[in-house]
Amino acid sequence: MDSDKQPLRIGLIGFGCVGQGFYDILQQQPGLGLAVTRIAVKNPDKPRTLPTERFSFHADELLADPELDLLIEVIDDPAEAFRLVAAALRQGRRVVTANKAMLARHLPELVALQQEFGGTLLYEAAVCGSIPVIRTLDGYFSHEPLRAVSGIFNGSSNYVLTRMSEEGSDYGPALAEAQARGFAETDPSLDMGAFDPRSKAVILAAHAYGVFLNPDDVLNLGIEGVSAADIAYAAAQNQKIKVVAGLYRLPDGRVTALVTPQFVGSDSPLYAVEHEFNGVVLEAEFAGTQFLRGRGAGGHPTGSAVLADVLALRRSFRYGYAKRAAAPATQLTAGLAATFYLRHPDETTLQTVLQLLEVPADALTTDAGGAHTTIPVPLEQLHRHRDALRTAGVFVAWLGEVRLAQPPPLAPAAARLVTT
Amino acid sequence: MDSDKQPLRIGLIGFGCVGQGFYDILQQQPGLGLAVTRIAVKNPDKPRTLPTERFSFHADELLADPELDLLIEVIDDPAEAFRLVAAALRQGRRVVTANKAMLARHLPELVALQQEFGGTLLYEAAVCGSIPVIRTLDGYFSHEPLRAVSGIFNGSSNYVLTRMSEEGSDYGPALAEAQARGFAETDPSLDMGAFDPRSKAVILAAHAYGVFLNPDDVLNLGIEGVSAADIAYAAAQNQKIKVVAGLYRLPDGRVTALVTPQFVGSDSPLYAVEHEFNGVVLEAEFAGTQFLRGRGAGGHPTGSAVLADVLALRRSFRYGYAKRAAAPATQLTAGLAATFYLRHPDETTLQTVLQLLEVPADALTTDAGGAHTTIPVPLEQLHRHRDALRTAGVFVAWLGEVRLAQPPPLAPAAARLVTT
Repeated sequence: MDSDKQPLRIGLIGFGCVGQGFYDILQQQPGLGLAVTRIAVKNPDKPRTLPTERFSFHADELLADPELDLLIEVIDDPAEAFRLVAAALRQGRRVVTANKAMLARHLPELVALQQEFGGTLLYEAAVCGSIPVIRTLDGYFSHEPLRAVSGIFNGSSNYVLTRMSEEGSDYGPALAEAQARGFAETDPSLDMGAFDPRSKAVILAAHAYGVFLNPDDVLNLGIEGVSAADIAYAAAQNQKIKVVAGLYRLPDGRVTALVTPQFVGSDSPLYAVEHEFNGVVLEAEFAGTQFLRGRGAGGHPTGSAVLADVLALRRSFRYGYAKRAAAPATQLTAGLAATFYLRHPDETTLQTVLQLLEVPADALTTDAGGAHTTIPVPLEQLHRHRDALRTAGVFVAWLGEVRLAQPPPLAPAAARLVTT
Repeated sequence: MDSDKQPLRIGLIGFGCVGQGFYDILQQQPGLGLAVTRIAVKNPDKPRTLPTERFSFHADELLADPELDLLIEVIDDPAEAFRLVAAALRQGRRVVTANKAMLARHLPELVALQQEFGGTLLYEAAVCGSIPVIRTLDGYFSHEPLRAVSGIFNGSSNYVLTRMSEEGSDYGPALAEAQARGFAETDPSLDMGAFDPRSKAVILAAHAYGVFLNPDDVLNLGIEGVSAADIAYAAAQNQKIKVVAGLYRLPDGRVTALVTPQFVGSDSPLYAVEHEFNGVVLEAEFAGTQFLRGRGAGGHPTGSAVLADVLALRRSFRYGYAKRAAAPATQLTAGLAATFYLRHPDETTLQTVLQLLEVPADALTTDAGGAHTTIPVPLEQLHRHRDALRTAGVFVAWLGEVRLAQPPPLAPAAARLVTT
């Protein structure tokens, strides 16, 4: 239960979409006993919704202020975010961050800093915006063995794929529309290249399995090469193409991670996760399969997640990382293969790609029209040549089925991965 | 973080589906630092899966045992469950229960006992089995204003409705199948009459809005009168009939509750909640709309929820009931009306029902075939004559639409309720 004696003094670093969303929610709920006493932003010349005197232009001033009870870091720059958050934790402070790219790179160090200096870091807003997936995995499922955790973690690419599906449009126009409507960044590469959902999968791995992955080791394929033809091919089979980030327990107990476009059937709850929404499927050993869907982005939804963390810090909540004590080994790409859909513009390109991926020609199953093929690919090869594939004019999607009702004893997704 | 020094000694009262499920999970996860040291059951003659010497036949012996660190109450009888849980809380103990009927009747008293004697009571398994909806509402949404909380909270009636929809069968055969397959009780009245989901709605109201409702004051209509014709009528409009339990914020800020069969369109996530699954839609002011789906019953899913509570108690977690401090007023049936679908076998029955409900004949809209009608009904009248309607040979379902994407500023469900 909350101690409401005197307002908690908050230092807010960053006043973009998330920072303003959080601030706005607080203005609408004045009785929470929280006060944003200082706000730091980088650019003194940018027009703001608050008077200039409300801002500091040096985040370090907030770090140096002993009056602040809690710091919120919601800036874009991952390197600067890490510097600030690490410094605050070294002071033993309570900190909230929403920076997924930073967390994915530095989680082990940030956990160690909390242990050494006694501070606390929460970051629910970093994954799936408003959906309390980190807290659910870390607390409720702290000791529940999980077969798989998979989902749509990136609203921008999901918005593009949904609009392509709805309009029959191609990638370029759909991306332009997403950018015009604020659902995709001017530089869309982190979202469309599936780097952003990869960061989120890495964060969830720490809570779902107790493993700290290096994001560079996780295979991520994007949708830069997707075309209306791919969407139409999926639709003809009552499927959709979605970018699915997944953590899967392999039959031998090791854990793997895969972030790729995937064919998803209507039997999967992810099929109905459209536009900028996010969704997560938790396949639990005893609890069964659970599904969570909610807004993955936006000032208010993400600001609401930041507020939930602030209130949790006031109640002395901290993540337990309970599974770290008996974390399984990981097997990210080495020795694993899976079956993929590959759409190619012509025979020459196909042969080039097959050579690149070291897939023998007799392993592929080409359809009657010849425009796409089904191939088993070593994940290591896909990982190695990922960037070449982005510009090769082909589109690659995992042919995984997401079977969720009554999963068999072993992870269904894992069972589909073939050990080479 | 857990203290794993010595095993937590657990007294388990009840060894039915939930108790055995919990026990079984513990056997499969021996490293959790938990030990079920005593088990109490009522009937010494019933065959058990464990040797007789493992059991006590007097639950009071467990209450009197100072060696037990924690008690789990998972018996059927609500009165005895209350006696045991209240006694344990008076000893300042940590207690887990799954008894929703007991909780719905005694929550204010149980909360008061915790405050007075310092014990703690958790009950995640009481609502939606494996779905952590209580914890999410109590913790994550502790200060988030909610427009509505609605869902399918009863797997038995949902199983019957799903099978009727799949097979085109009538209520009787579908119920018999559900009973044969263990998805419905021999006495199905609590489930089919929507008393069970009403208890769950009452429990959620304490955490979602901070209000303690008397279950008797909440209108619950069941599916005892549903027929294949109703299911077919819904299907012809691309809808399904589901028993939806809902809490809705009215335009004036008061909160109401309604548990009825309802027409649900494919735009609602509840449309896809089938068989014994449960689903909850949380319409939050800032976080947006969230949806959770998972197994609502079964030994392992419910046992897993009990285990999550046990581990949470070990970390000193307790519910905050944060919204209780500024709980809104409630308006349950008085002065409220809503539009319902009413299927009737003949004109005489229709007139009788209209008289009973005090609905003027010119208020109804009868369809061309004359088999059903659409009527605005004062909820107070429905509540008063609920039991008469169960046996009148009619079927009544709320014509609420569940609009979930981008809800308007006021609760969409609430806006559909008309103040008379």
